[in-house]
Amino acid sequence: MGTTVDDTFRILVATDNHLGCFEKDPERCNDSFETFEEILVMAVDHKVDMILLGGDLFHENKPSRPCMVQCMDLIRKYTFGDSPVLFDFISDPVENFKHSKNPVVNYLDPNLNVAIPIFSIHGNHDDPSGPGQFCALEMLSVAGLINYFGRTTDLKEINISPILLEKGRTKLAIYGLSSIKDERLFRLFKSNMVKMLRPKESMDAWFNIMVLHQNHTKHGLTNYIPESFLDPFLDLVIWGHEHECLIEPRLSAEDSFHVIQPGSSVVTSLCAGEAVTKNVALLEVNHQQQFKVTALPLQTVRPFVFDDVCLADHAMDLRPINDKINPVEDLIESHIHKMIIKAKELHTGHPKQPTKPLIRLRVEYTDESQMFNACRFGHRFENEVANPSEMILFRKFKQEKKPADI
Amino acid sequence: MGTTVDDTFRILVATDNHLGCFEKDPERCNDSFETFEEILVMAVDHKVDMILLGGDLFHENKPSRPCMVQCMDLIRKYTFGDSPVLFDFISDPVENFKHSKNPVVNYLDPNLNVAIPIFSIHGNHDDPSGPGQFCALEMLSVAGLINYFGRTTDLKEINISPILLEKGRTKLAIYGLSSIKDERLFRLFKSNMVKMLRPKESMDAWFNIMVLHQNHTKHGLTNYIPESFLDPFLDLVIWGHEHECLIEPRLSAEDSFHVIQPGSSVVTSLCAGEAVTKNVALLEVNHQQQFKVTALPLQTVRPFVFDDVCLADHAMDLRPINDKINPVEDLIESHIHKMIIKAKELHTGHPKQPTKPLIRLRVEYTDESQMFNACRFGHRFENEVANPSEMILFRKFKQEKKPADI
Ligand SMILES: [Mn+2]
Ligand SMILES: [Mn+2]
Ligand SMILES: [Mn+2]
Ligand SMILES: [Mn+2]
Repeated sequence: MGTTVDDTFRILVATDNHLGCFEKDPERCNDSFETFEEILVMAVDHKVDMILLGGDLFHENKPSRPCMVQCMDLIRKYTFGDSPVLFDFISDPVENFKHSKNPVVNYLDPNLNVAIPIFSIHGNHDDPSGPGQFCALEMLSVAGLINYFGRTTDLKEINISPILLEKGRTKLAIYGLSSIKDERLFRLFKSNMVKMLRPKESMDAWFNIMVLHQNHTKHGLTNYIPESFLDPFLDLVIWGHEHECLIEPRLSAEDSFHVIQPGSSVVTSLCAGEAVTKNVALLEVNHQQQFKVTALPLQTVRPFVFDDVCLADHAMDLRPINDKINPVEDLIESHIHKMIIKAKELHTGHPKQPTKPLIRLRVEYTDESQMFNACRFGHRFENEVANPSEMILFRKFKQEKKPADI
Repeated sequence: MGTTVDDTFRILVATDNHLGCFEKDPERCNDSFETFEEILVMAVDHKVDMILLGGDLFHENKPSRPCMVQCMDLIRKYTFGDSPVLFDFISDPVENFKHSKNPVVNYLDPNLNVAIPIFSIHGNHDDPSGPGQFCALEMLSVAGLINYFGRTTDLKEINISPILLEKGRTKLAIYGLSSIKDERLFRLFKSNMVKMLRPKESMDAWFNIMVLHQNHTKHGLTNYIPESFLDPFLDLVIWGHEHECLIEPRLSAEDSFHVIQPGSSVVTSLCAGEAVTKNVALLEVNHQQQFKVTALPLQTVRPFVFDDVCLADHAMDLRPINDKINPVEDLIESHIHKMIIKAKELHTGHPKQPTKPLIRLRVEYTDESQMFNACRFGHRFENEVANPSEMILFRKFKQEKKPADI
């Protein structure tokens, strides 16, 4: 990207921060906040122009008071300040923020000193609900803390007006689509009712980003959004909602645009997809419509090791000897000890990383006598593991069957 | 008050705004917000230095999302801006706001442009609760919208550090005591465990205001705070919690200080005390420690007429003639028509004043046959009255008895 830095947009991209998740768990209650703070610190350190969030900032639709207070405090602490914002807001804020009481981008409010504006769509966890159909992001927006966009209200037709930004010669259009039911959105796309409103002036000069929060992988026939539905004029799609981090830009199926999927910044479920290294992205876009994604590994994520064990693979006799001695328990215990050692390799040295790991071992059993009380078993690891009572997941081993010829 | 205006503090004093009260009533849902907005407009129009609130800003401990959004929007709209704040904050904010994550007075935050800082204690409606013991005011405070003070955390001893402000030669000390249980506070006062921490420097030069939110009238032996408990060095006590507006400064029982009781800015209960004209106060304090209270009548309060009728006073035969004709109903109906006419006299001409009145008639009956279904009766007034089903309150007439000689 051989251009002067001054024209290049620098954007910190993150999604699914799930603030407040596990807030009632004394061990894990701060995890989401520690990493959100790490992300904000990164934004400051990397001197980005803005932060772009892909939804599910909050875990609960109605975040608790401590959660809201902590979130507002962090945003005010790191994104307000004196460094000037170096890009212009070109589109009509009344159009971009039309659901809002005060449709102004926060960094242009003369009463607020915003250094790093945050732009966010909502996810399915923090979508509008209740009387007046407000969402938690609306609270942040009315306080001038974020710029909440991409909300649709029409159930029959979606017109997406992009946020248009200019930094020197670089033109950036951001199409936001906040979370809606996959089936409904699938249907609207199918019937051609999702319109992307492109700027008429120098239409081809814009770098076009879309940020959305939907199922990316296919769950059922219409319960996801195929990449082929999205307009091929797009340059980069930022996919929220999926928690697995796939930060390297990947060409879409039809080679039309690149896709990045930052994934959640906190482990919300103990599945394999959440056990990979979590990153956010530093996205740079220059005036030649070139972009670069730099993966920024998160240092404060709690170590999480996921593994499978299939008891059928073990030659030894696993039948319980008596009520107290179960060879399966011994086998699993030693396996878990190895996982705990592996988890230590995930320590980053960041002073705020929690060190007690999350451990999840899926145990495929062949015979129910091989099962034991996983919760009681967990007590032995109380001092070593963050989720002692939920480490083991038993499931019945199924011989692979060939499809029957019917 | 023959002093230069520049040295004189101008403070808008209000209390018990009860934002969100009746928010589910389609007729009354906006009442609290309309009047809160009127108060904020008054603050701007009267060019006050600050707004001082006496608690119960919110009606619900956990205000709804629309309520929070509306409140934040109004505060940001009217209290942020370019006019400079002309007084100095002299006390230690870490001491005044020690419960807060970010103990800074909002108008001195370099990232916020605050024109009229709001200072508020909490009331019993919006007191801290739940995990972390946060209250709704904490959300406004962390967003930089208000300065929340006067919170005590020690259950055994209360030390009140005043907010110390200087405008030219005028020195103002504000002692805030957010709502706590009357019985507990009564006990703490009795055992001398409530300490007012007076500034050592030029102790006698300060004008001393106390703002509290407690029962003022005696309910039971220890379920209120007698004025005699309060320190005689005080000059003015602002009493929150009581909803009747008693805005004229009145000397306390022991002639030690003056008391004003602004009352609620919205009718929350249909009692006689809420049917008087509601005011907020413009408080001016000059460098000679003189003060002046100007009552500012609120123009947007919904008209409310309260009356009593005693059926025993009526000579006519009030026995029902049949199932359909009840002379009491006719009598009451004509009485209510008169009250509705009286309510029209309460129209102020303010474009935002709701005009459908609140009507409350207490009917003292002598015989149960005189009662009727007040809710069904109310249907006749659906188009004329804001509370048709709750207009009538029946109560049994009691002959006054002389105390027995026991
Ligand atoms: Mn989601
Ligand atoms: Mn999510
Ligand atoms: Mn009250
Ligand atoms: Mn109260």
